[in-house]
Amino acid sequence: MFQTFEDVSDPKAGTQRVKMLRALLKKKKLDGFIVPQTDEFQNEYLPENARRLLWLTGFSGSAGSAVILTKKAAMFIDGRYTLQVRDQVDTDIFETLQVPQNSMGDWLAQNLPNGSRLGYDSNLVTLAGFERLKKAVGDAGSRLVSVRNNLVDEIWEDRPAQPKAKIILHKKKYSGQSAADKLADLQEKLARQDHDGLMISQPPSLCWLFNIRGGDVPCAPLVLGYGFVPAKGRPMLFLDGDKLGNTERAALEKLADLYEPEEIGGQLKTALNEMGKGAKIQLNAATTSMRLAGQVKAAGGKICQAADPLALPKAIKNSTETEGMRHAHIQDGAAVSRFLAWLERQKPGSIDEITAVKKLEKCRRKTGILQDISFETISGAGDHGAIVHYRVSESSNRGLEKGSLFLVDSGGQYFEGTTDITRTVAIGRPSDEMKRSFTLVLKGHIRLAMARFPKGTRGVDLDVLARAALWNAGLDYDHGTGHGVGSYLSVHEGPQNISKRGMTPLEAGMIVSNEPGYYKTGEYGIRIENLVLVSPASQIEGGEREMLGFETLTKVPISHRLIVTSLLDREELAWLNAYHAQVLAEISPLVDKKTQAWLKKATKKIG
Amino acid sequence: MFQTFEDVSDPKAGTQRVKMLRALLKKKKLDGFIVPQTDEFQNEYLPENARRLLWLTGFSGSAGSAVILTKKAAMFIDGRYTLQVRDQVDTDIFETLQVPQNSMGDWLAQNLPNGSRLGYDSNLVTLAGFERLKKAVGDAGSRLVSVRNNLVDEIWEDRPAQPKAKIILHKKKYSGQSAADKLADLQEKLARQDHDGLMISQPPSLCWLFNIRGGDVPCAPLVLGYGFVPAKGRPMLFLDGDKLGNTERAALEKLADLYEPEEIGGQLKTALNEMGKGAKIQLNAATTSMRLAGQVKAAGGKICQAADPLALPKAIKNSTETEGMRHAHIQDGAAVSRFLAWLERQKPGSIDEITAVKKLEKCRRKTGILQDISFETISGAGDHGAIVHYRVSESSNRGLEKGSLFLVDSGGQYFEGTTDITRTVAIGRPSDEMKRSFTLVLKGHIRLAMARFPKGTRGVDLDVLARAALWNAGLDYDHGTGHGVGSYLSVHEGPQNISKRGMTPLEAGMIVSNEPGYYKTGEYGIRIENLVLVSPASQIEGGEREMLGFETLTKVPISHRLIVTSLLDREELAWLNAYHAQVLAEISPLVDKKTQAWLKKATKKIG
Repeated sequence: MFQTFEDVSDPKAGTQRVKMLRALLKKKKLDGFIVPQTDEFQNEYLPENARRLLWLTGFSGSAGSAVILTKKAAMFIDGRYTLQVRDQVDTDIFETLQVPQNSMGDWLAQNLPNGSRLGYDSNLVTLAGFERLKKAVGDAGSRLVSVRNNLVDEIWEDRPAQPKAKIILHKKKYSGQSAADKLADLQEKLARQDHDGLMISQPPSLCWLFNIRGGDVPCAPLVLGYGFVPAKGRPMLFLDGDKLGNTERAALEKLADLYEPEEIGGQLKTALNEMGKGAKIQLNAATTSMRLAGQVKAAGGKICQAADPLALPKAIKNSTETEGMRHAHIQDGAAVSRFLAWLERQKPGSIDEITAVKKLEKCRRKTGILQDISFETISGAGDHGAIVHYRVSESSNRGLEKGSLFLVDSGGQYFEGTTDITRTVAIGRPSDEMKRSFTLVLKGHIRLAMARFPKGTRGVDLDVLARAALWNAGLDYDHGTGHGVGSYLSVHEGPQNISKRGMTPLEAGMIVSNEPGYYKTGEYGIRIENLVLVSPASQIEGGEREMLGFETLTKVPISHRLIVTSLLDREELAWLNAYHAQVLAEISPLVDKKTQAWLKKATKKIG
Repeated sequence: MFQTFEDVSDPKAGTQRVKMLRALLKKKKLDGFIVPQTDEFQNEYLPENARRLLWLTGFSGSAGSAVILTKKAAMFIDGRYTLQVRDQVDTDIFETLQVPQNSMGDWLAQNLPNGSRLGYDSNLVTLAGFERLKKAVGDAGSRLVSVRNNLVDEIWEDRPAQPKAKIILHKKKYSGQSAADKLADLQEKLARQDHDGLMISQPPSLCWLFNIRGGDVPCAPLVLGYGFVPAKGRPMLFLDGDKLGNTERAALEKLADLYEPEEIGGQLKTALNEMGKGAKIQLNAATTSMRLAGQVKAAGGKICQAADPLALPKAIKNSTETEGMRHAHIQDGAAVSRFLAWLERQKPGSIDEITAVKKLEKCRRKTGILQDISFETISGAGDHGAIVHYRVSESSNRGLEKGSLFLVDSGGQYFEGTTDITRTVAIGRPSDEMKRSFTLVLKGHIRLAMARFPKGTRGVDLDVLARAALWNAGLDYDHGTGHGVGSYLSVHEGPQNISKRGMTPLEAGMIVSNEPGYYKTGEYGIRIENLVLVSPASQIEGGEREMLGFETLTKVPISHRLIVTSLLDREELAWLNAYHAQVLAEISPLVDKKTQAWLKKATKKIG
């Protein structure tokens, strides 16, 4: 199993550990220390040894920060975690504050005694984040002090070692473009911008550029390391050499000089020295750590802040990648269909959330090509479905009961692509209200899937299409409608998305999720998610503009039993029936007889 | 007539005037001078004496800038004016460049000799604009030189005098809130923000705050002047005293100390001196001239840049203003209906664009309450309809011919409110393509009119609703869908709008236009525009969110003859029929028998 279910959190352990940290603060002559939920790469999924916030406080959410002062302590979390944090941390120690309604800056202004020395780990604070933090601490009449070693690491006795997963080469048949070509494109771009080099600190960009994959973090095949690409000459790769076999080393040595991560400071100095004084080094201030930025400066580089120049080429999939994505989704669709067919055969109340996750992973493994899950499956029965970021554990596990909805959001990592799908199904007989809500969500899903839009349209311009049907009923959902997805990389990828903040124009080749939902707290949750590929739209007679549309990649039936047919209009019904016909045709040949029979029924024409 | 039709432009005159300006440049030891199409208040519609760009070059567009160097000269215009500018200016003298593809900065970098002294009028450059200009000129190795008097004024012999239209008090029965109350709200806000005062440089904000109206510019009842409101104590108004009658002077003296505009520097010094050193003075850098900002600084003030704090309260109409807007739209709807009924009685080819404008203004005047038109009527027959900012003149005037479309976009200024309406009608028999295009535009108009959306929704989130039907046919339009509208003030008002740049949340009481269109260059133009009022939406059973919607204010039939009924769905038809029923009920009692008969036919139920 990729996914585990133990309760990772223990508020009691936190009580003791904060005491230890405070003792260390005294020894180090510090008045406080900041512990953010991140690592030096600003990874979404952290390696075990970087889960410092969890170890120290018990909080297991994906985002948050703690500040521990000598007397006071606070935990800053967003709206997703306001309830969870109170169960997981010792609230006698920690004040819990929701952002952005509250800010660490305001809290520090009120609680940090004048003239304090507040410690931070320069590996865990980005260049952009540092400026904000510095201002807040300065306004509070205190100052920030960079610590050499993270204080949590000093007291974390059995801290896991740095991950050393083997690096594999991501073959041309999957990537569609050689690393040498990608590097040439990048170097040309840097020269055009009159920059002397690019510092790469984000593992997804590094892996994409060098066509490598690894396993240093859960759920995404990432290699943790850094890269430096000069506008002219040999790139440098900073990786743990133990991760490299001979073949991989030989292949990478053709592209770049290889060094250990510890060598970065010295090697940058040498390289920038050769470039001459004040070499202009591009980096992304939002994702580059203070420490790495400091090394660029120490090497004599002039920092030029810019958005990651690899984000857009990585997001715009080439034809090999899109073809791979289609294949991956058919395999994944077969697995999820087997799971849903199995689920429908189970007696209501006879299985629970964990059983469902295990069965689903088993179905995916049966494809024979599953490399990992792309995130921990959200398996939400009944009211758990209304918790958008629910993660089942032994203690939260509950049964799939008669008359409830079951929401399952999951995905797989395959060499050919990354998948992400949500289906909501009725356990037993759904209520009329559930069916109405489901149909409204489905209308939004279909309206977005059917959208045609001119080149230049951004995600923000389309978001409403997925919401209008809910809005007409006085309902809404409080998350974005879609995120970008990597090609055997991170399941969440920028720069494009479909949301109120989606300012990047959509381009043919981009992949985004289409996942409207509706959540009734304490009762049920509904989400319908397919991945879609931005594609040139077929020419309409009399059409004047270059238009784009979406090709739906995900191939799994959407539950008929939850649809109120009369609420769908003719176009929406036509879309649904055509989609189901395609699912049947593509998935049926890959599955067992029982699933075939289920598929046939589940994809029957309606309306 | 408020509107005139003479050809204001004469490229030949420009040739001579640029020569005169260059002679003056030599005398003043300057190497160039900047002439923007604006005045010291950044007005949308300029008083005659501020139309320097038109006088100097012949260009009559609403936006643009010229730079005249000793040898070279350039005119910077946007996409709307690329054709027009070539007809209006002497292209032997002026290079014409489209922005934003080109920028004045780049042009200066290439054409301004190193070490040049480039003159500018600090009244006509905003604080924000100056920073950009200074950088561009500095990058070109030259410097900006502020001139005491605008050089154009020095050579413009018969330059019109400063306007001195009488000021009237905007009665409480129209404004709904006394100026004293508005001032108290503002002062409380300034105190809360810990600012010592607000410098008001925008006439619409000044007029709104003091409940005054005037006639210093065409099409908007604005008083040109400045205001200064301290957080505590007496506000100051800087106005030409000749504009004030005794009653008006007495009323304003109750609210503020009155001074002539020339006194602003001295009075600010006195006022800020009393506040103590470094008084924090709020102003909007995007609309405040360098000269005014300089006076604040010279008086010892510390400039605090902020968005206009009056923009939002001005945009959110109170119940008196919304009720007034409804009345104004019924009166205006009666006038436009009389016009359209008359138009339908005319033989195709028998009238022209100017005749139509004159007749329409006559119909509006017949209401007995028209104060002005709210902008120059866009009267576009045939292919002229495809020119989004078309303005008919004696030389461009053409007939309304059989088989063509006629687009008329117009509005009135009434004490109770400002109107803005576009209707497109068929002259003779329209083609199937015209009908299809019209119906697609109408679908967008209706979809936006019907929208329900949660509180917090911005214009950018709704813009697509007006476009989706066109997008589905491969079509689009290249302007925003809606702008804010003032209450007996400017017809274009912020901060909200419905467009790709509409980032202000819509709030109940805001008014916006709903004006999708379609333009086929060289053939015809279509636009359907109503004003709508953002209003709380009726509660739907099971609805959870606080929802808003639009109440359509404009009351004029939309041409049946251009509708392909089968392209409208049931909901769209229901909206149209309900709208027309309302138009008939509200307008019919106000019009003559002939118009009544036309209205009855024009509002007949279809589908």
